[in-house]
Amino acid sequence: MRFRVTRTGMHLPDEIETADDLASRVGRSAKWIATRTGVAERRVSRVGMDVMAAEAARTALGDEPPDLIVNASLTPIQLIPDSSIFVQRALGYEGIPSFSVHATCLSFLVALHQVGALVSAGAYRRVLIVSAEQGSVCRDPSHPESAVLIGDGAAAVVVEPCPSGATSELLAWDMKTFPSGAHLAELRGCGTSRHPNDPTTVPADNLFRMNGPGIYKKAVLAVGRMVRRVCDKAGIEPGDIDLVVPHQASGPALATLPRFGLPEDRVVRIVHQTGNCIAASLPMALHTAVEEGRLERGMTVLLMGTGAGLSVGAAILRW
Amino acid sequence: MRFRVTRTGMHLPDEIETADDLASRVGRSAKWIATRTGVAERRVSRVGMDVMAAEAARTALGDEPPDLIVNASLTPIQLIPDSSIFVQRALGYEGIPSFSVHATCLSFLVALHQVGALVSAGAYRRVLIVSAEQGSVCRDPSHPESAVLIGDGAAAVVVEPCPSGATSELLAWDMKTFPSGAHLAELRGCGTSRHPNDPTTVPADNLFRMNGPGIYKKAVLAVGRMVRRVCDKAGIEPGDIDLVVPHQASGPALATLPRFGLPEDRVVRIVHQTGNCIAASLPMALHTAVEEGRLERGMTVLLMGTGAGLSVGAAILRW
Repeated sequence: MRFRVTRTGMHLPDEIETADDLASRVGRSAKWIATRTGVAERRVSRVGMDVMAAEAARTALGDEPPDLIVNASLTPIQLIPDSSIFVQRALGYEGIPSFSVHATCLSFLVALHQVGALVSAGAYRRVLIVSAEQGSVCRDPSHPESAVLIGDGAAAVVVEPCPSGATSELLAWDMKTFPSGAHLAELRGCGTSRHPNDPTTVPADNLFRMNGPGIYKKAVLAVGRMVRRVCDKAGIEPGDIDLVVPHQASGPALATLPRFGLPEDRVVRIVHQTGNCIAASLPMALHTAVEEGRLERGMTVLLMGTGAGLSVGAAILRW
Repeated sequence: MRFRVTRTGMHLPDEIETADDLASRVGRSAKWIATRTGVAERRVSRVGMDVMAAEAARTALGDEPPDLIVNASLTPIQLIPDSSIFVQRALGYEGIPSFSVHATCLSFLVALHQVGALVSAGAYRRVLIVSAEQGSVCRDPSHPESAVLIGDGAAAVVVEPCPSGATSELLAWDMKTFPSGAHLAELRGCGTSRHPNDPTTVPADNLFRMNGPGIYKKAVLAVGRMVRRVCDKAGIEPGDIDLVVPHQASGPALATLPRFGLPEDRVVRIVHQTGNCIAASLPMALHTAVEEGRLERGMTVLLMGTGAGLSVGAAILRW
């Protein structure tokens, strides 16, 4: 599958919230927060994901509009219409096909695979994928373990056909979803099951909760196997990957990657300054790597992550 | 883009709700309901979309599991994880990659285009797309115009590579999204903007409302232009399309199709017995056409519809 990520963009809200700021609100020490999550600070947005998405998208797009807008974010503005419409509106466009892809923290990666297939087939020629999350709205201070992980932010990429003579392509793809882990990370409300108007729905149903140790245990196993599979498919050893751009799940989660043969110094890490920005984390890390000059054309880059479900996904690209 | 819809399935809940049943609850006569919407009866589900989805999927899949599950539905069970996980769980599978596509009523059509590209690229070989809606939960009886349209139901298809020597393919695709129509069909809650725990959120925010005449006016224009564009791309006249499978938006919406040159007797119509089942309407109509023997290999079929946004989309397939 031949396509190229031609441009990237990122937006971070101005407001910084440190572990100290959070400590009293969640009843834990700043040290506890830093140790458990590896997150020293995160941004908190007072505006919706559409505004953040548009900021990131404008950097990625420049002046030239896309021919498709794919919103790859978890936190919606409202249930109907879907968030891609509000992103297009915030960008000031009209008439551009738009829809959303939802795979929680893996939304960006899943969208990239789909968009790669569409571009590769000639269906679109300039696609905006944007992930923007205002997950701070859904933090539950009475559940510190989950609440202290989340941050707000946005990132965007433009996907175009690979120019003739260039080598950009998808070398391998792997994804698995294990519903046996469905209960490990949940926001039980905002749907038909615990509808907001149902008198039995309680406020905690509308906030995010995860079982950190449960996810960690299940994810480490699944991620290890996935790294092996996706590298086998690409015919490459983990140690030969030039750059690893993981979902920024948590500091401890990122610390496990070297045990799968991925060189620690090639893992892009922003979680200490951004928190877990759900689907936006991965493209934010990607943009950061591009900006820092860590990613050059021709390099092999492994994009990978985990998502509620429990899902694991990975793509190896020749950049 | 070469792929084939190999199997279809459908599920209708047992409970039938007639225009008479609804009349007193919404303060309108049964005749008013029938005239305004063309809906004589619809089904109402007491179980979640996952159970409905699994019923439809089992018919489509038979005993052979898919290698990808795409949920293409609007109404979620809960915000996290996404509904595809619950569909996989209801089917009794584990480890199959799963995610959701959200384009309100166009979700199935958008998913089919993406899955077609993925299958065409060799990324997957047996994909389940399922649309299942329990929209009845979000009906607002104080807003009869919207409430009397909605019905519950589910449908599924299996997408596979086109066998060598066979002619199944996508002949043309067209989609446009107009954020200027974002306010015409809304469910303002269940997201970050009017979060259920926000004290200013009111129960009506969590229910569906549409401006029927506003949508009708905007959609008729956009649909007419789209039919022209997609037929031009396929090099076919509207009158030469063998079968038209539209989203079942409403009786009056379906009645406009002949004015775009689409022969009335080739338009599949189930809305009078099912109501508008959101994203499930289109694949339910497709399954019905297959079951009734109206769709044979080699025929050109136009799948088309409108969605909140406002979006319009269409695909012409050689079946």
